[in-house]
Amino acid sequence: MSSEMNGAESLVRTLIAGDVTVCFTNPGTSEMHFVAALDKVPGMRCVLGLFEGVVTGAADGYYRMLDKPASTLLHLGPGLANGLANLHNAKKANSGIVNIVGEHATYHIAHDAPLTSDIEGVARPMSNWVKTSPTSAGIAADGALAIEAARQTPGQIATLILPADTAWGPASGIAETAPRVAPPKVSSDAVKAAAEMLRKSPKATLLMGGAALRARPLELAGRIAAKTGCGILTEGANTRLERGAGRVQVNRIPYVVDQALKVMEAAGNLVLVGAREPVAFFAYPDKPSLLMPKGARSTKLAGIEDDMEAALEALAIELDALNTPPAGVAGPRRPALPTGPITPAAIASILGAKIPENAIVVDESVTTGREFFPETAGAPPHSWINNRGGSIGYGLPVAIGAAVACPDRKVVALEGDGSAMYTIQALWTMAREGLDVTVLVFANGTYNILRGELTNVGVRNPGPRAVNMLTIGNPSIDWVHMARSMGVEASRATDCTQLAKSLDAGLASQGPYLIEVAL
Amino acid sequence: MSSEMNGAESLVRTLIAGDVTVCFTNPGTSEMHFVAALDKVPGMRCVLGLFEGVVTGAADGYYRMLDKPASTLLHLGPGLANGLANLHNAKKANSGIVNIVGEHATYHIAHDAPLTSDIEGVARPMSNWVKTSPTSAGIAADGALAIEAARQTPGQIATLILPADTAWGPASGIAETAPRVAPPKVSSDAVKAAAEMLRKSPKATLLMGGAALRARPLELAGRIAAKTGCGILTEGANTRLERGAGRVQVNRIPYVVDQALKVMEAAGNLVLVGAREPVAFFAYPDKPSLLMPKGARSTKLAGIEDDMEAALEALAIELDALNTPPAGVAGPRRPALPTGPITPAAIASILGAKIPENAIVVDESVTTGREFFPETAGAPPHSWINNRGGSIGYGLPVAIGAAVACPDRKVVALEGDGSAMYTIQALWTMAREGLDVTVLVFANGTYNILRGELTNVGVRNPGPRAVNMLTIGNPSIDWVHMARSMGVEASRATDCTQLAKSLDAGLASQGPYLIEVAL
Repeated sequence: MSSEMNGAESLVRTLIAGDVTVCFTNPGTSEMHFVAALDKVPGMRCVLGLFEGVVTGAADGYYRMLDKPASTLLHLGPGLANGLANLHNAKKANSGIVNIVGEHATYHIAHDAPLTSDIEGVARPMSNWVKTSPTSAGIAADGALAIEAARQTPGQIATLILPADTAWGPASGIAETAPRVAPPKVSSDAVKAAAEMLRKSPKATLLMGGAALRARPLELAGRIAAKTGCGILTEGANTRLERGAGRVQVNRIPYVVDQALKVMEAAGNLVLVGAREPVAFFAYPDKPSLLMPKGARSTKLAGIEDDMEAALEALAIELDALNTPPAGVAGPRRPALPTGPITPAAIASILGAKIPENAIVVDESVTTGREFFPETAGAPPHSWINNRGGSIGYGLPVAIGAAVACPDRKVVALEGDGSAMYTIQALWTMAREGLDVTVLVFANGTYNILRGELTNVGVRNPGPRAVNMLTIGNPSIDWVHMARSMGVEASRATDCTQLAKSLDAGLASQGPYLIEVAL
Repeated sequence: MSSEMNGAESLVRTLIAGDVTVCFTNPGTSEMHFVAALDKVPGMRCVLGLFEGVVTGAADGYYRMLDKPASTLLHLGPGLANGLANLHNAKKANSGIVNIVGEHATYHIAHDAPLTSDIEGVARPMSNWVKTSPTSAGIAADGALAIEAARQTPGQIATLILPADTAWGPASGIAETAPRVAPPKVSSDAVKAAAEMLRKSPKATLLMGGAALRARPLELAGRIAAKTGCGILTEGANTRLERGAGRVQVNRIPYVVDQALKVMEAAGNLVLVGAREPVAFFAYPDKPSLLMPKGARSTKLAGIEDDMEAALEALAIELDALNTPPAGVAGPRRPALPTGPITPAAIASILGAKIPENAIVVDESVTTGREFFPETAGAPPHSWINNRGGSIGYGLPVAIGAAVACPDRKVVALEGDGSAMYTIQALWTMAREGLDVTVLVFANGTYNILRGELTNVGVRNPGPRAVNMLTIGNPSIDWVHMARSMGVEASRATDCTQLAKSLDAGLASQGPYLIEVAL
């Protein structure tokens, strides 16, 4: 077989052998051999996006749900560039992704054809691993290296650049990927230091992040909290938080600096489990960048590179808390359905009343969603995903990846209207693949977060032209038309009763459904 | 005044003083002081885009029409990243642009907040000039340097990174931009070498590009052609070609390699005027990268960095052709309106029959538009813009920039359905600004160019999964709904009669209008 195989086929077979079985793609000419190989070799699901930000964001969402990398297929430097913003978000979420980026044939690059650019230069700022594979005989081995890089703990962005002649030239066979290495256990010193801080601090909090936010580590944290009286917090944005009735309930550090400072003041000393000492999202004149109160200290129990569940178990044993019933377990609670005008608080109640069991909530609701947590805490168990990198336009693509990863779970995407527009092409992929995603677009017709930020950065009395630049309601976007234009069924809700009804319709459908939530 | 001015205001005033009077923007928190300054200082037109690729592409289109830079305002590394693909296209078109990219406050960067990234690294591959401005006292001077870099001949991409504290800290005043330097005259040796080649070659051709494609240099080329019998050609894609009845008619080197080789065989030796020896857009197995036939030579009369009009005039004088009536002047011709099914040839005739005088045609028609030139050559004088960088998604944004630059001219954007989707958010900006753009979307439901490329790269008998990855007709995009969702009036044409009628409606409207051309 290998004697007839070209480089592209050896790469596809290497990916599949390395358990990379989904390819989110937006290909061009230089990737045609890879496309042909995808066709020839069974075992790779191909999902087409009409814009590369959809492709990379989907790979992020896929990793967040399955803890294993998907591949992307991107067209040269500009195609990769279009995917960079969501690679930034994925990198900050420590998602593992194997990017395959087509390149001109090696001998063609020197001629500076229109699409020639410095692909490695484009890749580097948002990648942990970058390599241009020079020969068709070596591409399979480089593919294996890319997989190994991507599926480390934590995950990494691996970008493999595939010149056209590397794809079409003869291969030397499939390469084997080294087995995944289990993350290391933390030292007993780290456990003892954490136990000591929890025992001796007048106020102490477990600050958790990354894979520490799964149900079992959270349960361990709840036992530790019950035993020691410590609090539990998460960073402002989480890769995937497992929450809902029966799970240990945690709150996030607020986005707004003054609120965050109050929360951190109450938190006291910190035991870090997959999280860092908190910093402000942005700097503001006369406000601090670092959110730790004066005199507060932190100790690192475990980083995202460690086996965090084992670390929490060791800490629970050290504190004799392993059998202590966990504190802060959310009881089942479905809020009453509100009526009347739609407000952020009313949306929170409706979500709390309707989120189905085992749902995946992808939250890019920005200002509208700041208060969604309390009212949804008692809904049946579900996963909640946030934007770790802060570049908006992550939500709809991540919802695609989550739906591809978990076809038996309902995905609910919560979107600001401004943020939804960055990668709106995602709706088309949802329709094409029949993905089970219900999208709520909170249509307030403004970059509402920036209205607040004008004041926060010290701009008093902004004039009409400044306000106009933050207003996206003129023309207003017709979200029902938008969704239908790409094959997604949709409806508009202008009061709470309609919203509840629309949400029922979306959740009952087996495919994508969009609700314009008029605010 | 300067004692009260902050860095952002000093930068805005410096830009306006340097004749940068349009800002295409998609701002975020770190840019709020710049937004506030735009509000406070009169003289800068601000045009909001809902995605950064719209913003950078618009700046490209603006430069192409006015030969002067606009500014962009982008949000940190990911915002810049979203604009990179169209900066790539702009760079390949030698358009001058001043990018202002917000950055965290200098002291905040070390804390690695969610949006922190290597902005200079992101900027470098698609910029000619990059600087992070460290102090509010120096930002005005750096702004002047950015303008000077952008408005060189040829234009350059200048990216100025503006930390938040550089924006909000105290300024030292406005900086003056050095006057624009006129491009140099070419040497008499270059003129003599070109004249000699034209006199002595059995076959010779002027290969023209860049600003040599304006009416006057083309007229000079026509006189030279009449005198010497040489041909005139342009590269495959042009920044702006002035054509139509009464202008010297030129053809482009075809995209398809075999066709290009035939054209170059017929062209003989080349005199280069703002163009390079032609290279293939992509490499293919067993096809050459270089399109010059064996034995053909070239000589450079003038590059895009030179005064090309003066060079052609000098060459015409050298050849005693200055008063020779130009060859190849297109006569006025409006093709008869076809009826029946819509084909690429029929579209060409309808365009030829309808293009209004002084129109700006932005061509991203990809496969559909390959034969548009002959039938439109005799339409009233108009400008024709192509994609120089090859990254699709350039057309609608460039149309915005052209319309902002030339409010008294009708813009006609010719779009493939695949390419239109990359930056579809452009429609909203057209509606918001009431831009006079008629968009034709050629809806063939496929990445049709890639169908051909599968064969070109040697893939025989592609299977259904490969073909499926190049098919965007499932679901089919409803372009009328799409346009209306963003406030743009639209209609669908399924035969030639409807297309002619729809085009009349679009051309008669004073604002944006989209026609879905069903193929």
